[in-house]
Amino acid sequence: MRLLCFFFILCSALMPLAAGQPPQQINLMPVPASFRVGPGQLLIDQTFSVALAGEKGTILERVIQNFVGDLSRKTGMRLDTKPGDLARATLGIRTVHASKEVQELGEDESYNLEVSPAGAQLSAPTTLGILHGLQTFLQLVETTGDGFAVPVITIQDKPRFAWRGLMIDVSRHFIPLGVLKRNLDGMAATKLNVFHWHLSDNQGFRVESKKFPKLHELGSDGLYYTQDEVRELIAYARERGIRVVPEFDMPGHSTAWFVGYPELASAPGPYEIERKWGVFDPAMDPTQDKTYKFLNEFIGEMAELFPDQYFHIGGDEVNGKQWDANPKIQEFMRKREIKSNQELQAYFNKRVQEIVSKHKKTMIGWDEIKSTVIQSWRGQESLAGAARQGYRGLLSHGYYLDLIWPAWHHYAIDPMSDDATSLSPEEEQRILGGEACMWAEFVSSENIDSRIWPRTAAIAERLWSPQQVQDVNSMYQRLEVVSRHLDWFGLTHNSSYGPMLRRIAGTNDISAPRTLADVMQPVKDYAREETATVVPTSATPLNRLVDAARPESDTARRFADLVNVIVSGQANNTETKAQIRILLTRWRDNQTNLQQLLDGSFLLKEAAPIAQDLSALGAAGLRALDYLDRGERPPDPWKAEQLALIVEAKKPKSQLLLMVILPVQKLIEASAGGELPSSSN
Amino acid sequence: MRLLCFFFILCSALMPLAAGQPPQQINLMPVPASFRVGPGQLLIDQTFSVALAGEKGTILERVIQNFVGDLSRKTGMRLDTKPGDLARATLGIRTVHASKEVQELGEDESYNLEVSPAGAQLSAPTTLGILHGLQTFLQLVETTGDGFAVPVITIQDKPRFAWRGLMIDVSRHFIPLGVLKRNLDGMAATKLNVFHWHLSDNQGFRVESKKFPKLHELGSDGLYYTQDEVRELIAYARERGIRVVPEFDMPGHSTAWFVGYPELASAPGPYEIERKWGVFDPAMDPTQDKTYKFLNEFIGEMAELFPDQYFHIGGDEVNGKQWDANPKIQEFMRKREIKSNQELQAYFNKRVQEIVSKHKKTMIGWDEIKSTVIQSWRGQESLAGAARQGYRGLLSHGYYLDLIWPAWHHYAIDPMSDDATSLSPEEEQRILGGEACMWAEFVSSENIDSRIWPRTAAIAERLWSPQQVQDVNSMYQRLEVVSRHLDWFGLTHNSSYGPMLRRIAGTNDISAPRTLADVMQPVKDYAREETATVVPTSATPLNRLVDAARPESDTARRFADLVNVIVSGQANNTETKAQIRILLTRWRDNQTNLQQLLDGSFLLKEAAPIAQDLSALGAAGLRALDYLDRGERPPDPWKAEQLALIVEAKKPKSQLLLMVILPVQKLIEASAGGELPSSSN
Repeated sequence: MRLLCFFFILCSALMPLAAGQPPQQINLMPVPASFRVGPGQLLIDQTFSVALAGEKGTILERVIQNFVGDLSRKTGMRLDTKPGDLARATLGIRTVHASKEVQELGEDESYNLEVSPAGAQLSAPTTLGILHGLQTFLQLVETTGDGFAVPVITIQDKPRFAWRGLMIDVSRHFIPLGVLKRNLDGMAATKLNVFHWHLSDNQGFRVESKKFPKLHELGSDGLYYTQDEVRELIAYARERGIRVVPEFDMPGHSTAWFVGYPELASAPGPYEIERKWGVFDPAMDPTQDKTYKFLNEFIGEMAELFPDQYFHIGGDEVNGKQWDANPKIQEFMRKREIKSNQELQAYFNKRVQEIVSKHKKTMIGWDEIKSTVIQSWRGQESLAGAARQGYRGLLSHGYYLDLIWPAWHHYAIDPMSDDATSLSPEEEQRILGGEACMWAEFVSSENIDSRIWPRTAAIAERLWSPQQVQDVNSMYQRLEVVSRHLDWFGLTHNSSYGPMLRRIAGTNDISAPRTLADVMQPVKDYAREETATVVPTSATPLNRLVDAARPESDTARRFADLVNVIVSGQANNTETKAQIRILLTRWRDNQTNLQQLLDGSFLLKEAAPIAQDLSALGAAGLRALDYLDRGERPPDPWKAEQLALIVEAKKPKSQLLLMVILPVQKLIEASAGGELPSSSN
Repeated sequence: MRLLCFFFILCSALMPLAAGQPPQQINLMPVPASFRVGPGQLLIDQTFSVALAGEKGTILERVIQNFVGDLSRKTGMRLDTKPGDLARATLGIRTVHASKEVQELGEDESYNLEVSPAGAQLSAPTTLGILHGLQTFLQLVETTGDGFAVPVITIQDKPRFAWRGLMIDVSRHFIPLGVLKRNLDGMAATKLNVFHWHLSDNQGFRVESKKFPKLHELGSDGLYYTQDEVRELIAYARERGIRVVPEFDMPGHSTAWFVGYPELASAPGPYEIERKWGVFDPAMDPTQDKTYKFLNEFIGEMAELFPDQYFHIGGDEVNGKQWDANPKIQEFMRKREIKSNQELQAYFNKRVQEIVSKHKKTMIGWDEIKSTVIQSWRGQESLAGAARQGYRGLLSHGYYLDLIWPAWHHYAIDPMSDDATSLSPEEEQRILGGEACMWAEFVSSENIDSRIWPRTAAIAERLWSPQQVQDVNSMYQRLEVVSRHLDWFGLTHNSSYGPMLRRIAGTNDISAPRTLADVMQPVKDYAREETATVVPTSATPLNRLVDAARPESDTARRFADLVNVIVSGQANNTETKAQIRILLTRWRDNQTNLQQLLDGSFLLKEAAPIAQDLSALGAAGLRALDYLDRGERPPDPWKAEQLALIVEAKKPKSQLLLMVILPVQKLIEASAGGELPSSSN
C-alpha cells in the first residue's frame, strides 16, 4: 500500500496542475518518502517566525537559531531568531520527544511537514525529525514572482536506512576543522547522519592524545585536531543530527603511530610518516601484550572523547610482510596453531573487540574483519554474505568519491540490490545503510568540496528516499539545484573553480581555459596514480587542471542530451542544432585563444594536446552537421579520418578525459548513416 | 633628487626590456617608492624556504607562518613553514629591531627587497617593514611558463603617510568577526595600517562592557563582540601590522547607549535602538557630573581593552535639539555664559579630553570638534585649516566608500592637494594620512567586501605611494590583478556576485541578469536613501540588484575605452569595432532572455525598465556603427529619437545607473558628425 500511495503521489505531484495554477517543480533532494503538492504557496517575508511546542531538549533552540540563520542567508533578509507565539507563527514546530542526549543509531528520524498559504506545521517524534524537516523547508524556499515562498505541500518523510554516512580521510591530507564544518552543513542539508572520521593512517595521526602525546606530536607534522576541537566538531555535528564515528585504523595502515611508538610495530624502527600512497608493510605486533595494553589505554581515552556508540578500528589491507619476517611472531603462530596471517588478524581483532567492548563501544571495521558492524568496500556480495552470517553491515563499495565516477553511477548502486535481494526480512534488517567515502590521496582544502559535492547528494538520496526513486533525469535536475543551495553554507565546490583556473591560466581572463575545463574530467578509478609520471606523495601540489576539473562535466552531459535529440531523428530540431553548433564552434575556436596563454603558464601547457583534440572534435562535429543538414553522405575517407581522431582523443592525456567524444562520434556516424556507438563515454 | 630617481626607475621599469628578455609587468599595488626591474626571475617551488636574521620580537614567527600559509594558498603547493638556514633559504629576512610591543603611529615601516634568480633578501629596520615586504613578495608571485616565480627586482619602499586607515561601521549593520578578519587581510595586502572600528552609534552598541553591561545587552540586539573577541581581533591585526583604533561616538550618535542608560541623555527616556538612518536628536547631557563619571569608568575600561594610543570619540553631528529643549541644560549654559550648542559641545569635549588623557590616550575626533587629531570628512580645506591651527589631521573626505564612487575618483584625492599645498613644512607634518570609510547603512556580511574591495586598494596606493604615482590606466590594470589576488584571502567581493544574482534571478542560469548587472552601478552619494520609496531601516533586506551590482562596472569602462578608439578616428579599428558589436548585440538581445525570468522573480522585476533601456541602447549603437561603416549620415529624426532615448536612459531606475550610456551617445554623435558629449557618465 505504501508503495502504491507513494507512486500515486509522485505522479500527481509531477503532473501539470490544474489550469490557473503555476506548474510546480519540487526541488528536493533527497526526495521525501511521500508528498503531495497543492496549489498556492506560503510567502516568506520578514514577518517570518517560528514557534515551538512539545519537548525542547538541549539542542532545539540552537537548531532553530541555525535554521533561521540559514534562511536569512538564503533570502538575504534579516529574520527574527527568537521563537514566538504558536498561534501566529509562520512555522509551528511540534516535537514529541527530545532526541537522545547522545544521538543513537536507529532513533526515529521521521517528520511531517504541512505547508499551506497561511503557515506551515512541522511535527516529529524526535528532534532529529525536526532537523530533517527544517532542511526540507529550507530547500523548498525559492524566489518567486511574489516574493520568497515555499510551495503548498504535504510531506510525510522518513529515511529508508538508519545509517547514512560520509567518511572523510583526514590522514592522507589534513583537512582543517572549518572545512569539515562546512561539509557537515552539506551533510545536514542532504539528511546524511553519520560523519565517519578516518583519523589515522600511514600518512598521519590526526588527534591529540593526552595519554600518548607522541602519536600526534610525531605522527602528524603538527597537523592534528586538539581534543577541544574534536569536542567542538562533535557538538557542531550534534546540532545537525549527525553522529561522529571515529576510525583508528589497525593493525595495518598504522605507520604514523610507529613514529612515536615503534615498539608497537612488528619490525624494529625507526619509522617515518609515510609520504606515498598504497598498502605498506608496517603492522602492529598482535603477539605482544604491550600492544593490547597500549590499545586499551588509547581506546579508553578515545572512547571518552567520542561519545558515539560505534568505534571503527579499520582492519583493512594488512599485507602480512612484517609478520612473516618476524621469528617471534612466527613462533607465536606455531605455538597457538594459527595457520595464516588472516587467522592472526582474527586473533588481533578478537583481542581488540574485547577492549572496545570493555569501554562500552560497539566495534565496526572494514570488511576484511568480522566485527559487529562491517563496512563493505568489496561489494554487495560481501555485504549480503555478512548479513547472512548475522553481522550488520554498511555499503561503501560503489560510493567511493575519490574514484571520480559520475553521480548516476553512485545513484544506481543500492545496498539492497544484487545479492541482497535474496535476503530474508530478518537478514535485510542487518543492512544498516551506506557511506560515501572521500579518500584523500588527491584532495586538499581547496578542492575537497568539489569531490564531495554535489555527487554525495545523489548517494544521500539513494540512502534516504524510497528504493523506487530512480529517475536519473530528475536526479540531475535536482542535483543542479541542490548544488547551488549548498553554496549558502559556504561550501566551495562551485566557488573554488574560478580561482583555481586563474592560478593555472596565470591571468584573470579564464574564458579559454574554462571552456576546456568545462568538458574535461579527471581520469577514473585508480588511473591517476597508475599513470603518474612521478610517484605522487602527500607533498605533490594539487594545483593542476586535473585537480580543478570537476568530477562530472555538466556541459558534456547537456551536449550529449542535445545530440541524442538529433541522432534519434526527432522532429523540429532546428533550435537544438543551433545550440549544438554554438558549442562545437566554441570548442573548435578555443584552441587559438588558449594557445596565447600556453607560453605564460607551466600549469596550462599540459592542456595543449587536449585543446587540440577538442578543436578537432568541434570541427568534425560541425562538418558532420553540415552533411546532415544537406542530406549528403560524407566521403568514406573523411569518416575514417574522423574516427581515427576519435580513437586518439579517447586516450587520457595529462590524467584528464575529454567528455564530449561520444556525442561527436554519434554525429559523425549519423551523418555517414552508420550504426551509432553505444558504449558509455 | 629622490623624485628624479623615482621617475627614472619607473620609466626604465615600464620600458620594454632588452631583446631576449620577456617583458615584465609589475603588478604591485601600492606601487613602491622606488624599484628597478631586472632580467630573469626567481622560481618558487616546493624547495622554497625562509630564514630569519636579526631581531625576532614576539610576532615574527607567526608572521612567517601566515606568510607561508598565504603563499601556499596562492600557489596550491604545500610549503615548509619552519624558518631554515640563512645561507640556503630562498628568502632571507633580516630585521634590525623588533617593532614596538604595541604598534605605534610613525614607526619605521620601510623595507628593502632584492630579488635575484638565486634568491631574495628582505631587510627592514622593524618588523613592520618586514610585514610590508612580505606582502610585496606575495603580490609579485605569478604563474609563468617555467613555474611560479617572482621577477628579478630591487625595491626600496616606504610609506608616504604614517596613518593609512580603513574605518568600518559595525553599528548600523553588525559585521561578524570573521568578515572583519578577512578585511584585515585585505588591508595588510594593500599596506593599510589602521583599522578604525566604529563601534557605537544610534543603531547599535557593539562591544561587551563589563562595567556597564546594559550597553551591549540592551543596545545591540545581541549582536556585539565579546571582550575576548576584541582581543582576538587586535592580535590578528597586530600580526598584520595594523593598529586598531576604537571609536565610541559621543555626545551625539549615541541612542544605543541610552537604551540601557537613559540617565545619560539630555531628555528623559525610555529609548529604543534606532532603526532608521540619519541624524537624530538624542545626545548625552554635557551638564551633569554623572555623565563624566560614567564616561570616566567606561573609557577607563575600554582604554585597557584597546592598547592603541589613539581613542576616537566621534563628536560629529549633534543637532542640539535635546539641549535646546532641556531647561536644566539651558540654565547651565546661561550660568557659564556658554553661548551656543557648539560651545556646549566644546565644553563636553574638553571634559572628555581630560578623561581620555587621564587614561593615557590621545583623543581623536571627527572634524566638528577640536581634538588632538582631527579626522576630516568635510574636505581638504578643513584639514589644512586644522593643520594651520596646530592640530594633526587625517583626510576621509573623498574616501567614503558608501558613496559608491569609482576608484579613479578616490585615487585623484590627495591629502596634500588643494589647500594643503600652501602649508608650511611644519604644518604639512601634521597631516598624518587618511582613512577610507565604510559607513554601513547599505551593507551586510554578504556585500560589504564588494563595497570595500577592490576600490580601497586605490586609496591605499594614494596613501602609500609617492604623490607622483597618478596614472589612472596603470592603476586600473593593477587594480584588476590585486582584486583577484585578494580572493586568496577569502574576501568575497568577487565570489558573492554569482550567488546574489542567482537569488535575484530565482534560477541557476544567470547569464541574462549578469549581462545586465555587469553594466549597472548603484546610484551615487546619498541618492539611495533620498530616492527610496519606503524609508530604509536596519531591517531592510539588502538582496536587491542595487545590492549585488558592483560599485564600478569594469565592462562599462572597457566599452568606453573601445568607443573612444573609434570616435577618435584611430586607424585599424576593425577589431575594435567587432568587439563593440559583440557587446552591443549582447545588450540588445539580452532583454528577450531576461524577459523569461521576470515573472518568476519579484527581485528581478524592477530591472525590466533598465533591461529595456539597455536593449534600446544596444540597437542604437549598432545602427550608429552601421552608419559609420557605410560613411552615411543618419537622418536627423533618427538622431533626435536616439538622443531622447539617451535622456530617458540616463534617469536612475530602481536606484541603479546604466553605465554604457555616454559611449553609445558618442557613437550616435559620431555617426551624425556632431560634437561629442564630454561630460562624465
